[in-house]
Amino acid sequence: MSITSKRIGWIGTGVMGKSMCKHLITSGCTAFVYNRSAEKTKELTELGATLCSSPAEVAANSDVVFTIVGFPQDVEEVILGENGVIANAKEGTIIVDMTTSTPSLAKRIAEVAASKSMAALDAPVSGGDLGAREGTLAIMVGGDLVTYETVLPLFEMMGKNVQRMGESGAGQHCKMANQILIAGTMIGTVESLLYAAKAGMDLDQVIDVIGSGAAGSWSINNLGRRIAKKDFDPGFFIKHFVKDMGIALEEAAKMNLALPGLAMANQFYVAAKAQGLENLGTQGLYKVFATMNQA
Amino acid sequence: MSITSKRIGWIGTGVMGKSMCKHLITSGCTAFVYNRSAEKTKELTELGATLCSSPAEVAANSDVVFTIVGFPQDVEEVILGENGVIANAKEGTIIVDMTTSTPSLAKRIAEVAASKSMAALDAPVSGGDLGAREGTLAIMVGGDLVTYETVLPLFEMMGKNVQRMGESGAGQHCKMANQILIAGTMIGTVESLLYAAKAGMDLDQVIDVIGSGAAGSWSINNLGRRIAKKDFDPGFFIKHFVKDMGIALEEAAKMNLALPGLAMANQFYVAAKAQGLENLGTQGLYKVFATMNQA
Repeated sequence: MSITSKRIGWIGTGVMGKSMCKHLITSGCTAFVYNRSAEKTKELTELGATLCSSPAEVAANSDVVFTIVGFPQDVEEVILGENGVIANAKEGTIIVDMTTSTPSLAKRIAEVAASKSMAALDAPVSGGDLGAREGTLAIMVGGDLVTYETVLPLFEMMGKNVQRMGESGAGQHCKMANQILIAGTMIGTVESLLYAAKAGMDLDQVIDVIGSGAAGSWSINNLGRRIAKKDFDPGFFIKHFVKDMGIALEEAAKMNLALPGLAMANQFYVAAKAQGLENLGTQGLYKVFATMNQA
Repeated sequence: MSITSKRIGWIGTGVMGKSMCKHLITSGCTAFVYNRSAEKTKELTELGATLCSSPAEVAANSDVVFTIVGFPQDVEEVILGENGVIANAKEGTIIVDMTTSTPSLAKRIAEVAASKSMAALDAPVSGGDLGAREGTLAIMVGGDLVTYETVLPLFEMMGKNVQRMGESGAGQHCKMANQILIAGTMIGTVESLLYAAKAGMDLDQVIDVIGSGAAGSWSINNLGRRIAKKDFDPGFFIKHFVKDMGIALEEAAKMNLALPGLAMANQFYVAAKAQGLENLGTQGLYKVFATMNQA
């Protein structure tokens, strides 16, 4: 039996999850779906997915269960809880958590799964809602090789850059490296543009010059352009980025690793929340630096 | 008389200056050159440039004088000093400083030049030795429009992305925005890779995944690759970057602008100097963070 003819479960049908699950369904998978707000599964049930009333019901019906929910505590509840996946799945089930969550929790889930003759992968993504819709996500996977290779055909329906980074937790670690990189780059982006604005220059012209050379980044060329237009609408929410940086700082501390740049970026994003900006996109950091400087 | 048939002066024939001047000569300009170490002008005199024994002699022979030297104090000396360009040039001479220097000095030079019936532009570049060799530099120009348009054909022999950013000092301000952007991006780059290394991941594989999405930048894809190979050879020297960040912090302070990310990056690069790493490339920042964490 090929993996694509298997019954797949999907828990968490928000902006990302809905698009990702859709690719599996349109590629021929039989899907059992659950979301806290059931109405967000409508697009999927219209495509033939079966709506379940609990993670337990999803688990009981599926060979591979995907989760992509909000916070690590949500992951813990839907996978390790009483009414969660592991307590209600059959032996041999594969659990794939695609939430950006903690490497430590990913390891614990893999251990608990193994003790019940199941297997688990951590597989957070990057690429945003657009990448999810277009099936071009980067997928960073942690877990054993055999399980990875079993699920790979499903990953390839959702993403273009799928990589196994190592054992359980390594997918989450790679996502943290991604977020740490963004944190520093965003500080550079907003400070650079604020300096340019203060010096009286046209921000778009500045980006034209500095965005294509050694200072160039996705951030300056995409979020910088939005800042120039005073467009702070979310691509990626500040509140979610603060969650991710919190995880990264915690994991770094566990490894005795000081990351002062990340710590500083996190503090300014916490200030963004203090200023009620948590529902802006990450480029809203510009407002924090502007407010601080009364600029 | 077209600008390209004019007599041009070139002061400062280091790695950047030599390649830039070469493009002018091979495009038909008559060049008068000066460098503190005269042997560094050899390649240019072999192409027909006349070696001068002082900035004064360059100035006396040229219609447009370019300078690209080390530090702002060097700029001050060769342009505003007793034996410098302005004191020894004829009326109508155009002075173009391409050193990365202070916006304040650029404004002062333009004022002094104007008072002697000359004109001046500030025109720092980005693109490194490769961009200089290939004539693909970004050139960020400050100064009045007429002077800019007069010199533009010469700029276009040296660069691909030539932009007038505003009045005198604006070219230097734009270069500062470029360096501020790099500072933040470098912090993200080294912290991200150090985290990945500490978590036991393969750095090149991590860059394969995170370098092409929302975290991507020239820094991670070029300098990050070098860090993965433990190659800390200079593309751009730490000692020069520290100079640039010092200028940016000073100018920001003059504008009452707090840039905590830049200040932090600067501090770690000063630590790099303290550790004797000033002649490494800017990716040597990784060593500072690794040493700090005994990683």
